[in-house]
Amino acid sequence: MDLTAREIDIATPTPTVILHTADAEELGAHPLDRLRIEQAERTYTGVVETTTELVEEGVLAVTSRLGHVTGPVTVSLAPKPRSVAHIRTKLEDHELEQSDLQQLVRDIDRNRLTDVELGAYVAALHANGLSHEETRHLTQAMTDIGERLDWSESVVADKHSIGGVAGNRVTPIIVPIVAAAGVTIPKTSSRAITSPAGTADTMAVFCDVEFTTDEVREVVEETGGCLVWGGGVELSPVDDKIIRAENPLSVDPPGQVIASVLSKKKSAGSNRVLIDIPYGEHAKVTSLVAARDLAEDFRLVAEHLDIDIACTITRGGQPIGEGIGPILEARDVLAVLDGGGPLELRLKSVRLADILFDLCDVDADATELLDSGAALEKFREIVAAQGGDPDVARDDLRPGERRHVVTAGRDGIVLSIQNRTISQVARRAGAPRDAGAGIRLHCREGDAVEAEDELFTVYAEKAGKLTEAVEYNAGVEAVRIGDPDEALIERR
Amino acid sequence: MDLTAREIDIATPTPTVILHTADAEELGAHPLDRLRIEQAERTYTGVVETTTELVEEGVLAVTSRLGHVTGPVTVSLAPKPRSVAHIRTKLEDHELEQSDLQQLVRDIDRNRLTDVELGAYVAALHANGLSHEETRHLTQAMTDIGERLDWSESVVADKHSIGGVAGNRVTPIIVPIVAAAGVTIPKTSSRAITSPAGTADTMAVFCDVEFTTDEVREVVEETGGCLVWGGGVELSPVDDKIIRAENPLSVDPPGQVIASVLSKKKSAGSNRVLIDIPYGEHAKVTSLVAARDLAEDFRLVAEHLDIDIACTITRGGQPIGEGIGPILEARDVLAVLDGGGPLELRLKSVRLADILFDLCDVDADATELLDSGAALEKFREIVAAQGGDPDVARDDLRPGERRHVVTAGRDGIVLSIQNRTISQVARRAGAPRDAGAGIRLHCREGDAVEAEDELFTVYAEKAGKLTEAVEYNAGVEAVRIGDPDEALIERR
Repeated sequence: MDLTAREIDIATPTPTVILHTADAEELGAHPLDRLRIEQAERTYTGVVETTTELVEEGVLAVTSRLGHVTGPVTVSLAPKPRSVAHIRTKLEDHELEQSDLQQLVRDIDRNRLTDVELGAYVAALHANGLSHEETRHLTQAMTDIGERLDWSESVVADKHSIGGVAGNRVTPIIVPIVAAAGVTIPKTSSRAITSPAGTADTMAVFCDVEFTTDEVREVVEETGGCLVWGGGVELSPVDDKIIRAENPLSVDPPGQVIASVLSKKKSAGSNRVLIDIPYGEHAKVTSLVAARDLAEDFRLVAEHLDIDIACTITRGGQPIGEGIGPILEARDVLAVLDGGGPLELRLKSVRLADILFDLCDVDADATELLDSGAALEKFREIVAAQGGDPDVARDDLRPGERRHVVTAGRDGIVLSIQNRTISQVARRAGAPRDAGAGIRLHCREGDAVEAEDELFTVYAEKAGKLTEAVEYNAGVEAVRIGDPDEALIERR
Repeated sequence: MDLTAREIDIATPTPTVILHTADAEELGAHPLDRLRIEQAERTYTGVVETTTELVEEGVLAVTSRLGHVTGPVTVSLAPKPRSVAHIRTKLEDHELEQSDLQQLVRDIDRNRLTDVELGAYVAALHANGLSHEETRHLTQAMTDIGERLDWSESVVADKHSIGGVAGNRVTPIIVPIVAAAGVTIPKTSSRAITSPAGTADTMAVFCDVEFTTDEVREVVEETGGCLVWGGGVELSPVDDKIIRAENPLSVDPPGQVIASVLSKKKSAGSNRVLIDIPYGEHAKVTSLVAARDLAEDFRLVAEHLDIDIACTITRGGQPIGEGIGPILEARDVLAVLDGGGPLELRLKSVRLADILFDLCDVDADATELLDSGAALEKFREIVAAQGGDPDVARDDLRPGERRHVVTAGRDGIVLSIQNRTISQVARRAGAPRDAGAGIRLHCREGDAVEAEDELFTVYAEKAGKLTEAVEYNAGVEAVRIGDPDEALIERR
């Protein structure tokens, strides 16, 4: 069928074409079918949506994602991408071949799948999982797409934390400790999606975090490390597209997690990788058994990618550190690098760094590097290389001026501090968008408290956000206080 | 956050709102998140898409599906619909409660699910299936939505064929036979989605098929039967929305099929239902075992809905009847009603009608009703009641003028006539959009043919379509001719 193409300014994630219902009927095309669009020597494929209003008969509206196409075009029905058959295979719990997974990753990368198909892909992985071999092939396929970093050093370190624990900002402490020992550590991190801060959000308090691959290379060659946002370097661009479909379903299939993490590490040129798996009632991984399974899966896949891996299983039942939110966490980071700071944050960072040294066969001591000031000096170097102020002091980092102190309200002991709920309060206060917003905890689980004792302070930059957070907090129980005998959990 | 709403003319299936990336960040909203939109006393929920071009900061573009909203609005993040948790439950292979399925059906009906979520729903059903109890609850939930028909008669008949067999236009023959015996049969049918004609497309050759529920009631009260398009009466409006997500994935989960079919029958007020399940290599149901399982599942669910059911398992390995495409099938229908026509089409119609009589405890004989002309007379009555010409003759129904005869090309026997391939040829010739387009078969499986014998004629209304169909046909083997000893299927 011959139509006249017209561009339309809608930013759909899939390359969409909109045609009049009458033309669609004539073609036998239904919504979400694919259309092959030919013009001169070029061929495009678009996903069909139909309308009786937006365009008249004879016109094909083309969204920007498809490309710049205007004027006469010839259109015909195109077959479904082969990936759709692979998604069905996985839904039917059969094993996918290496070439199937390559095809899937390629089709996702090129935005060839519709949302219905992406939803089914994520659903299939959640329902039937991936074998080690499939995970390995998926990881390799995701590594092969996007940019790569290569290093002359034979040992390149990296680390990753499975999320879900509030605070827990160990990365900006570990990276300078490791780099201070002369080990290359090109660390990319994410921004918050559902949490009050990601490592990239916290680092953005100190310096720029968005760099090209070439700029990252320069920073690392100069300082031995970096602390940048992964989204800027596109080491595994498919990942963001998969996450977009995982979020609405709140699923996070382990095979996909492993492939996403390890493909980024492999693309970053790292070969000694520490994976921290915090587990606890309100963390992403909720049981010790699940944490151990995940660690084993990571190990098996990493082996095939020539990555030496160490997994740590850590307590994730409550937040680590006092601050939650970009600036409040940045203050904790600087305090620990300066020899003080929240004890658990320091202990966890030191322990993980030492395990990474062990994995890299490097004779170094994290406590020494921290106490000597070498790590702080390295951190300031990295901040400077990333365009920040190397002389930044803790008092320069000001949390929001609007504050509300939450007190215990009764005598008792702190039974639990729930990661998810406390994160929600911090987000309502404005984090991560308002860098100064968040929470500062004044208690730990097991603390004995009296009614007037302060449990935590809510910080906000805007009065409205503070009100929103305080109102939300009144309806939840982010910090649960109970009688000492409730430490038995429950009496039934 | 306060924004100014502006309507935007995009016909998205979900109620979508588009906001500037900066506003989305401020809100903490990601693509596919839900936004609660408040204006005066009303509250709306929209699915988020972001843009840096289409709207400026401070503006919320609202698509027509959401409603008419302009001017100042207050927006905030809304929680995911509860259905999303139910989809996850099914993905994890747990049983869904009645209330879960009610919620799912309600959310789908109100367009509350995004395509990612709809894809996951269909995927979950394909991966893990539905128990009989779940299927029953789903059927009931789908019945409760949409319009209902009620009849004063205690016995109301109906029939449904699981698709996939080309031709097979038994319904316009069975309905008048049954109605001629004085049994009420309010039949709604579908239009073609991937086939060259649905029953509604064939009936549209004779008369109108799009009626409101009230009009359908009038036709049935006048004639005892009807042959209308189901999409017009909205007996199970959720069905179309689910089909939209099933199509791109080419899946058709049995539990969903049963719920879709039986909810429509229940809403149509029918309590004696015949389900025909054709099986064969190229039909929807490919094995006898699968056909029997499906029949048993239909039976168990129907029992709980107070529907007396009979399932027939019939051969579906090759097309039934000679014509494929609306007018070509309409000619077959009229020929059978007139006492002649393709033998298999007549035999199948008679057999199914007799089983339906048995199910209805009615002492009637289909052959007699056909041979006496009573069925033809009833058919003409229904056609008249639906606004068509009751005196229509077979010669009034003219297939397309552009024709191409396909010959055997070699001596041998007809080994197979593939439903799917022959349907594709007919669709490329223009069916169902061009009513006169399609195929007329001149052979049956097992026929001995000589090289110059005609296998089938391709009909088209437009020369370009004929060329397209003929070219497509040259590359496939819709009718396979082989040596007699190839009847052994294969020698290896």
